[in-house]
Amino acid sequence: MNESSLRALLDAVRDGTVTAEQAFVQLHDLPYQNLGYARIDHHRSLRKGLPEVVFCERKTPEQAANIFEQIAAREERAMGTRAAPAHAQAICERVPQAQYHPLSRVIVFDGREPSAQSGHPGVVVASGGTADIPVAEEAALTAGFSGCQVTTLYDVGVAGLHRLLDQAEVLSTASVIIAVAGMEGALPGVIAGLVPCPVIAVPTSIGYGTGLGGVAALMNMLNACAPGIAVVNIDNGFGAGYLAALIARKAEQLA
Amino acid sequence: MNESSLRALLDAVRDGTVTAEQAFVQLHDLPYQNLGYARIDHHRSLRKGLPEVVFCERKTPEQAANIFEQIAAREERAMGTRAAPAHAQAICERVPQAQYHPLSRVIVFDGREPSAQSGHPGVVVASGGTADIPVAEEAALTAGFSGCQVTTLYDVGVAGLHRLLDQAEVLSTASVIIAVAGMEGALPGVIAGLVPCPVIAVPTSIGYGTGLGGVAALMNMLNACAPGIAVVNIDNGFGAGYLAALIARKAEQLA
Amino acid sequence: MNESSLRALLDAVRDGTVTAEQAFVQLHDLPYQNLGYARIDHHRSLRKGLPEVVFCERKTPEQAANIFEQIAAREERAMGTRAAPAHAQAICERVPQAQYHPLSRVIVFDGREPSAQSGHPGVVVASGGTADIPVAEEAALTAGFSGCQVTTLYDVGVAGLHRLLDQAEVLSTASVIIAVAGMEGALPGVIAGLVPCPVIAVPTSIGYGTGLGGVAALMNMLNACAPGIAVVNIDNGFGAGYLAALIARKAEQLA
Amino acid sequence: MNESSLRALLDAVRDGTVTAEQAFVQLHDLPYQNLGYARIDHHRSLRKGLPEVVFCERKTPEQAANIFEQIAAREERAMGTRAAPAHAQAICERVPQAQYHPLSRVIVFDGREPSAQSGHPGVVVASGGTADIPVAEEAALTAGFSGCQVTTLYDVGVAGLHRLLDQAEVLSTASVIIAVAGMEGALPGVIAGLVPCPVIAVPTSIGYGTGLGGVAALMNMLNACAPGIAVVNIDNGFGAGYLAALIARKAEQLA
Amino acid sequence: MNESSLRALLDAVRDGTVTAEQAFVQLHDLPYQNLGYARIDHHRSLRKGLPEVVFCERKTPEQAANIFEQIAAREERAMGTRAAPAHAQAICERVPQAQYHPLSRVIVFDGREPSAQSGHPGVVVASGGTADIPVAEEAALTAGFSGCQVTTLYDVGVAGLHRLLDQAEVLSTASVIIAVAGMEGALPGVIAGLVPCPVIAVPTSIGYGTGLGGVAALMNMLNACAPGIAVVNIDNGFGAGYLAALIARKAEQLA
Amino acid sequence: MNESSLRALLDAVRDGTVTAEQAFVQLHDLPYQNLGYARIDHHRSLRKGLPEVVFCERKTPEQAANIFEQIAAREERAMGTRAAPAHAQAICERVPQAQYHPLSRVIVFDGREPSAQSGHPGVVVASGGTADIPVAEEAALTAGFSGCQVTTLYDVGVAGLHRLLDQAEVLSTASVIIAVAGMEGALPGVIAGLVPCPVIAVPTSIGYGTGLGGVAALMNMLNACAPGIAVVNIDNGFGAGYLAALIARKAEQLA
Amino acid sequence: MNESSLRALLDAVRDGTVTAEQAFVQLHDLPYQNLGYARIDHHRSLRKGLPEVVFCERKTPEQAANIFEQIAAREERAMGTRAAPAHAQAICERVPQAQYHPLSRVIVFDGREPSAQSGHPGVVVASGGTADIPVAEEAALTAGFSGCQVTTLYDVGVAGLHRLLDQAEVLSTASVIIAVAGMEGALPGVIAGLVPCPVIAVPTSIGYGTGLGGVAALMNMLNACAPGIAVVNIDNGFGAGYLAALIARKAEQLA
Amino acid sequence: MNESSLRALLDAVRDGTVTAEQAFVQLHDLPYQNLGYARIDHHRSLRKGLPEVVFCERKTPEQAANIFEQIAAREERAMGTRAAPAHAQAICERVPQAQYHPLSRVIVFDGREPSAQSGHPGVVVASGGTADIPVAEEAALTAGFSGCQVTTLYDVGVAGLHRLLDQAEVLSTASVIIAVAGMEGALPGVIAGLVPCPVIAVPTSIGYGTGLGGVAALMNMLNACAPGIAVVNIDNGFGAGYLAALIARKAEQLA
Repeated sequence: MNESSLRALLDAVRDGTVTAEQAFVQLHDLPYQNLGYARIDHHRSLRKGLPEVVFCERKTPEQAANIFEQIAAREERAMGTRAAPAHAQAICERVPQAQYHPLSRVIVFDGREPSAQSGHPGVVVASGGTADIPVAEEAALTAGFSGCQVTTLYDVGVAGLHRLLDQAEVLSTASVIIAVAGMEGALPGVIAGLVPCPVIAVPTSIGYGTGLGGVAALMNMLNACAPGIAVVNIDNGFGAGYLAALIARKAEQLA
Repeated sequence: MNESSLRALLDAVRDGTVTAEQAFVQLHDLPYQNLGYARIDHHRSLRKGLPEVVFCERKTPEQAANIFEQIAAREERAMGTRAAPAHAQAICERVPQAQYHPLSRVIVFDGREPSAQSGHPGVVVASGGTADIPVAEEAALTAGFSGCQVTTLYDVGVAGLHRLLDQAEVLSTASVIIAVAGMEGALPGVIAGLVPCPVIAVPTSIGYGTGLGGVAALMNMLNACAPGIAVVNIDNGFGAGYLAALIARKAEQLA
Repeated sequence: MNESSLRALLDAVRDGTVTAEQAFVQLHDLPYQNLGYARIDHHRSLRKGLPEVVFCERKTPEQAANIFEQIAAREERAMGTRAAPAHAQAICERVPQAQYHPLSRVIVFDGREPSAQSGHPGVVVASGGTADIPVAEEAALTAGFSGCQVTTLYDVGVAGLHRLLDQAEVLSTASVIIAVAGMEGALPGVIAGLVPCPVIAVPTSIGYGTGLGGVAALMNMLNACAPGIAVVNIDNGFGAGYLAALIARKAEQLA
Repeated sequence: MNESSLRALLDAVRDGTVTAEQAFVQLHDLPYQNLGYARIDHHRSLRKGLPEVVFCERKTPEQAANIFEQIAAREERAMGTRAAPAHAQAICERVPQAQYHPLSRVIVFDGREPSAQSGHPGVVVASGGTADIPVAEEAALTAGFSGCQVTTLYDVGVAGLHRLLDQAEVLSTASVIIAVAGMEGALPGVIAGLVPCPVIAVPTSIGYGTGLGGVAALMNMLNACAPGIAVVNIDNGFGAGYLAALIARKAEQLA
Repeated sequence: MNESSLRALLDAVRDGTVTAEQAFVQLHDLPYQNLGYARIDHHRSLRKGLPEVVFCERKTPEQAANIFEQIAAREERAMGTRAAPAHAQAICERVPQAQYHPLSRVIVFDGREPSAQSGHPGVVVASGGTADIPVAEEAALTAGFSGCQVTTLYDVGVAGLHRLLDQAEVLSTASVIIAVAGMEGALPGVIAGLVPCPVIAVPTSIGYGTGLGGVAALMNMLNACAPGIAVVNIDNGFGAGYLAALIARKAEQLA
Repeated sequence: MNESSLRALLDAVRDGTVTAEQAFVQLHDLPYQNLGYARIDHHRSLRKGLPEVVFCERKTPEQAANIFEQIAAREERAMGTRAAPAHAQAICERVPQAQYHPLSRVIVFDGREPSAQSGHPGVVVASGGTADIPVAEEAALTAGFSGCQVTTLYDVGVAGLHRLLDQAEVLSTASVIIAVAGMEGALPGVIAGLVPCPVIAVPTSIGYGTGLGGVAALMNMLNACAPGIAVVNIDNGFGAGYLAALIARKAEQLA
Repeated sequence: MNESSLRALLDAVRDGTVTAEQAFVQLHDLPYQNLGYARIDHHRSLRKGLPEVVFCERKTPEQAANIFEQIAAREERAMGTRAAPAHAQAICERVPQAQYHPLSRVIVFDGREPSAQSGHPGVVVASGGTADIPVAEEAALTAGFSGCQVTTLYDVGVAGLHRLLDQAEVLSTASVIIAVAGMEGALPGVIAGLVPCPVIAVPTSIGYGTGLGGVAALMNMLNACAPGIAVVNIDNGFGAGYLAALIARKAEQLA
Repeated sequence: MNESSLRALLDAVRDGTVTAEQAFVQLHDLPYQNLGYARIDHHRSLRKGLPEVVFCERKTPEQAANIFEQIAAREERAMGTRAAPAHAQAICERVPQAQYHPLSRVIVFDGREPSAQSGHPGVVVASGGTADIPVAEEAALTAGFSGCQVTTLYDVGVAGLHRLLDQAEVLSTASVIIAVAGMEGALPGVIAGLVPCPVIAVPTSIGYGTGLGGVAALMNMLNACAPGIAVVNIDNGFGAGYLAALIARKAEQLA
């Protein structure tokens, strides 16, 4: 339940088209819905403007599907991340229109009018290498689900700098750039040296040895000399996409 | 030299009020100015919309003052961070209007018209404890230098949650929130659970033992469950303030 | 053998209902029983008031079942943790009344009179997320085995703070609270800011990237600003449940 | 302001001995008092049964003294930890009865009737070595301030086990034991193997090389085989003393 | 080839029972034998008094078997560690008398006269828990192979200290004690506080969470307060057994 | 496309034997070729003198084979590292002459004239143990692909120093030595103490316990007392071979 | 009080030359002597054959001097380590014959007959560099105090291997070798490859950067390929010297 | 003593201009010279082509000066690194022509003919920032002492990429590039993406927070995607300069 649907419900009670009792049933779970093993935060949509997203890892397929279904029922849209095929199958049995992206392990359902889905422009997702694409796709799908139009630039790492400089125009007109990189993770710092917009850095666990599962890339990004960068957890494409959407939306709201 | 001053110079050449030779002298150092021990990036103002900021630590007072003076001469404003009193003294001898903030070790000069300094609204800086204030002030001064209006909320850490919840209105209307915290660093995650705007998390080195000079706080912030957070380096108030300004400015530009 | 059964045995010898020889056989293994690969600490029940609990991991099913059976024979109750299905099967062949909990990998047998099982009130187990439940259940089962009545509150993490604040009454009347959380692990610190009782913090290995298998949550908990917290090892639900029982029992004894 | 003083105030308003306006002035700062650089949590005494304690490190002497004075005025008692001599001097100028303990850097004021200070019995503080005494004293003073009677056993580390076993009687009758140790930190685990009460383990930064400033001791304590232990941050004598008081008080309340 | 077999060969050449050419063939590989993928150090037996031991891990079964066979041929005995069943099978095909110990993954062949195998007395191997036995057995087998008589004491960890104190006599008469422990690893330090002989500490990877695969135990042992301890790598039973044999042999040589 | 093939193409356009349009097709992808999931850096051959090498790990077999084929088509040679059998199979279907080395997971194709393949002399690859050979082979194959003649010395680790000293002549005449070692990683430092040429140190992940997957070896090498060493990432045989070729080539160019 | 002095006292009681009361006074403190801040372990001399050694760091000069004096009075000898000049001065005021070694911060008193001081032969102390000498001296002085004759070999690190090989004879005849090294710490492993006796490795904190205060050297030593090594804490010359004496004494006892 | 001076001496003995006895005195210390606290490796000049360099840190000024003087006497040149002013003063008293560089803490003496000092061309030293210059200077001075001509490029870090790209010509013609950088340490990877020569990466300890004293930069460099890089220890300008000289010399020798 988001702001507009809450207002519509209250107007309907005032107008008598919905009884108080009917409204009570819908509002009863507003703060959260207790499934015993989970308390779904249906109030989040009001607080944050976006519904809760289901982190599927370490949940059973049944748990994930139940939660996904409850959110979809109240929000007209729902999203799950780190969904294994078993999660996806269980979800699709309950919400058949949900669409699964196996590479990024994201599953999305959006039952709203297409017009409601049209998004904020200006989110760019860049990846350093081919192996970083699954994380980059998680970021892109999250930003899309959150109402943004996304441009992707893959394999533009600093080992061949001309591949990045070649995209200067796309970069310079972005509202916010998500830069995804493993190994040494130098991409976000180099991009931030070139552009005037916020850069969200996503370290990935791609690499070996002293890469330490993404820690080397993370440390690079936190220590970048170029200002205008902030960093999310290793492989956290979801967090980057969500934050990018908040930034892009803020811009839009003021426009 | 920023966009408007560059345009003004070129117009003047076209109109004959400035000779090509005079313009050449001014433009000669545009890409960067080589002092031998430093190459000042005068082009940054055009690329990023904000001039280079001088990181004074491990520079000699003379080096810092020289660089500060060159930037001030071309940009009408300049800022230094991590400035020891000796740096501040050397800078003030050359740029007497510069103002030094000893707690946060920031030094600022802004020679522009007051109207040019008026800023983007909506930046909130919150600190978990009293000891985090120097870093929070660095963030606030940087955002202010970068053209933002800043509200500060100090000592609102989660050990007494009502102190934070009491400020719900200020938090809910912010464009972007900088949350500064040491020890366990829980503040940004709790704030992000409450608000619909981007949260920039700044871990501080306040604490002892397993705090590991801010690493505990950093790890907390990177692993926060609430979405909409990104993190900068430990004690990097400057980076947070700069990024907040980019976000706030972006919003303003579209408005 | 616990205090009361030891006293009963000695009384029986005095009264002649048990011969000295018969008593000798029972008392021979009192300090410990040497199985070659293990020395079962039967004296622990006298020292600590609770029998030794079998840590099954890295023991063969035969070893685990042997030890479990010996304890059950002398104590009328026994418990195993980190029991794989193979351990559980081997144990149930020897102690058929033992009950296996696969989610938390705990196996329990209690052959005492129900009245002897009635417990100390006031232990609350709270978990941050759904994925933390296995560890929380290990804590709850251990506290129950150790003679406590346990209330559980699952998925009350700080990303939706109202879910926790909604349970303020349960929290405020607890004797001791076990707070289980992965990811950034902020739950125990926030609870400790609200309640007047001891809080035992259990970090879990839930998370990814810089979560470092629970180290981020652990560091958060060790650095919590709110006083009244202590921490056990990552995923150590057993240790938390056992300690909670010691605290609750101490309270009861004085009553 | 604690529970009894709040009730007394409300009774006085009811009885007309205090005007509503006078009560308003006293209650105005109840939730917290905003000094700008600090928000003193005067409500904590109601929530936790103990007033806020001032962590002096990285506060200026003036800040620390101001906060200490405000708490003392409302609570009739106050305590500061990690107080340098300069902090102590500033505090004593405002609260002359405050008593400074330089070894443990604790400063305490208790203006209540002696009868109100009489404490819960059964807290034992044991240290592994002579060098651990400052941290042990911080724990003992905190527990004393929190209303407990404390017994200390210093230099009973495991290198000479008979020194510890010699104290078996004191250990076995404790309500709660605080075990403080640096170097390898084995003391708490050995004690927990012997006693039936909760053990709070405090690692200290005493040691060198791979001691890593207390991390070795901390890891030992978190991994102790003997159940019934929980751990606080390195050198956090305050946290251990506070938690011990909560445990001892709980026992007392039920008695 | 060891000292006595070398002397015998040279005597035989002097006496004419072996031709110089025949001796050349035998001595040709004395410094080392180059198999291309390995250079077997046949000279080690002369330098160190014990033949090279084959570390099987990450070698192919064929490589391991080849090397084992070559050593056995020249030394009348051979030993392999970390041997998977496939390694053992390949070795036994070539050296059928070799004996495989699957728990400790050790494989041993000794073709010498029984009298030559009789060993130095006084090596004691103690383990903290049942799960540490595989590493303890590797140590015991290595010391046995190196010519020592070994006594084992398993599951005598500090959680039930009386199990260890009960063995005081065995401990006090040892020439050297190998103490094997995982989890918090406190056993070696407690033993070293009791006995007058050298203690070799072996941390094991048994444990979880902050045990960090044996690092917690290692750090405990390196920081032990009781003097007379030195430490080998995590799970390195071989290294401990070998060193114990050197110490016991040295004692014997002087006797 | 390398320097000579580019010059040949331009000459052909000048001479009219290739039309401008034909040249355009060939030059169109010169800076890089965008496959969507990868941007192949065909310009690298001009910049670095060697074509891009395909890092196969975490690429799909199809992606790896596509990229390999495109490089082979333009460069007459191609190489892939960390190629699983599935990668190798997919590549060989498209470039049948490619040769797969399963031990080192390297795949190589060189379609140039044998004379063009003749190499720079003087690269020596030494390994500490048998288990380090896969990494050493990756280094040797890379140096060979990059145009060098390579000598290998395996199992010359410092536990039997005479095996290394025996090869003094080979070592002393090398142009550059690649020293590959796991466990404690002492080999490169000892070699650098003996020879007058650059030493490239490659730590491997061979070992256990505190070896930490190669970190112990890496730290040894970075801290070596003997000058003339530099280090590459753990298990990075490719990087060492490539760098050795640059050094050997530089020498050759000047000759 | 050691074994012989205890026997003499008991004989004197039996013979009537000492009254039981006089003996009681001497024996009263036998298990330990409680100074409040310290419990001196006078029983250690009986258990371990050597008196307790005073670790002065973090003790006040008065505490250190008091403890030193009490041990000297009962044992006719005493030793302190990590003694700052202030410790040494306070000790010498009470035990004027004590001798201070400022480089290694060791202070020693031996009031026994010279014949009682004659030692076990065969302890060799080798250091990698000049900067490691203070730690090496602590080891040598400890072994000397513990009754050994010590040979020192300084600056024989592996960067110039011939300096070490030149001392082959001294090394080959040692009973036990203490090898002290910082930086990469390769010395003990190389020595253990050459000699047939136990090697005690002492990492030092000499170095910089990734030396991490001795951790790099420690890791090297724990992972050494050559068998026959065990390791003590960083900079723990005392522990190495003490252990060497135990080994050498054991040999002597059997002789 | 280097190759040519050794040959000259032997020729002189042959020709009778130097007596065998005179030669003996000079050759006596050839392998090394034992000062007790140091064994100067005079043979190194023959082995490595460059004399031993004195690492002054943790040596007393007298020790450093003695060693410096002995090397200077035999080699006609000498160099010290990490020399504090006290070291420099002591050295200059003995070798007055030595020249001290306080910024980089290097001291150099070269008494050879200018022609003998002429160097190998092509070494470029680049630094990311102004604060990295002391380390860069240590590298440049070492390479110069080792016989190279050095070009320096300071403050060309990736935050303003055009400052680096502007120097493309200098970079592309180098024989070997030393890239010095702190903070995130991205400079070497970006340079290696552009140039065809070997790149030696030097991380510096410049930075704060997660920079961890240079570890972040080190990890970046070890994980760089661009091939052709190897890394030395943090702040090890000496090691980089020495290695660069070996590479440049090798090239020269072959020319």
